[in-house]
Amino acid sequence: MSECIFCAIVAGDAPASIVLDEPDVLAFMDIRPFTPGHLLVVPKRHASGLAQLDPDDGAKVFAAGQRIATAMRSSDLPIDGVNLFLADGVAAGQEVFHVHLHLVPRTSGDGFGIRARAQTPNRTVLDGTADALRAAVESFGA
Amino acid sequence: MSECIFCAIVAGDAPASIVLDEPDVLAFMDIRPFTPGHLLVVPKRHASGLAQLDPDDGAKVFAAGQRIATAMRSSDLPIDGVNLFLADGVAAGQEVFHVHLHLVPRTSGDGFGIRARAQTPNRTVLDGTADALRAAVESFGA
Ligand SMILES: [Zn+2]
Ligand SMILES: [Zn+2]
Repeated sequence: MSECIFCAIVAGDAPASIVLDEPDVLAFMDIRPFTPGHLLVVPKRHASGLAQLDPDDGAKVFAAGQRIATAMRSSDLPIDGVNLFLADGVAAGQEVFHVHLHLVPRTSGDGFGIRARAQTPNRTVLDGTADALRAAVESFGA
Repeated sequence: MSECIFCAIVAGDAPASIVLDEPDVLAFMDIRPFTPGHLLVVPKRHASGLAQLDPDDGAKVFAAGQRIATAMRSSDLPIDGVNLFLADGVAAGQEVFHVHLHLVPRTSGDGFGIRARAQTPNRTVLDGTADALRAAVESFGA
């Protein structure tokens, strides 16, 4: 039995309430939902984080998330919007180290939201940050 | 000039601090960052929401987000984690109606996070919700 709870769910060795079962992707209910209907989309192949995730699996996870979110909103369920959320790393709040995309169905007044300290840097600061990030992406790609 | 601010940025008619420019995807700094380095990844082709988004464009947006997030974390920038976030619909907090994936670089104590009312439904409730969502996905796919 896997030590990874999501691998155990994928293997059928741990209980889960399944929403979508595809060859490379599984979607199931979060057991501590932020809102009713909160579910997780995971690649079946284990990847602890985005750095370890096969880009094809990433694309399939997002495609499944897009499809489920669209289906939710076009259904007669009380869902007026959807948030997609993914945490990569302990500092980002990741708790299970098997990549998972949260889908959080939204209705007005459901109490879900983002907490953040607002910032309004000027264009010079933004350009400087963009330069540093672009350099990081370019040196990573090389 | 486009009425959509992100289409205007893609067209070069509005200022932006660009991080990544690919044939179908553009990434640029958010002008009201949640944390330093907060950027947006958008499809170049306009789509107001996930229901309107070409799935191939969605996959490319996520792939670019995955690559930038991984590059950020492997760089020597002070980034210990990354959150990906997407709002689909007014009820989900969407403000610009051109699909955009937020990348929020994280460090411990940066003040960013999720607000939610914790819930712990039992398995019967989770299974019932999963059944309703699975039916929505199946009838949408048909
Ligand atoms: Zn796993
Ligand atoms: Zn647009």
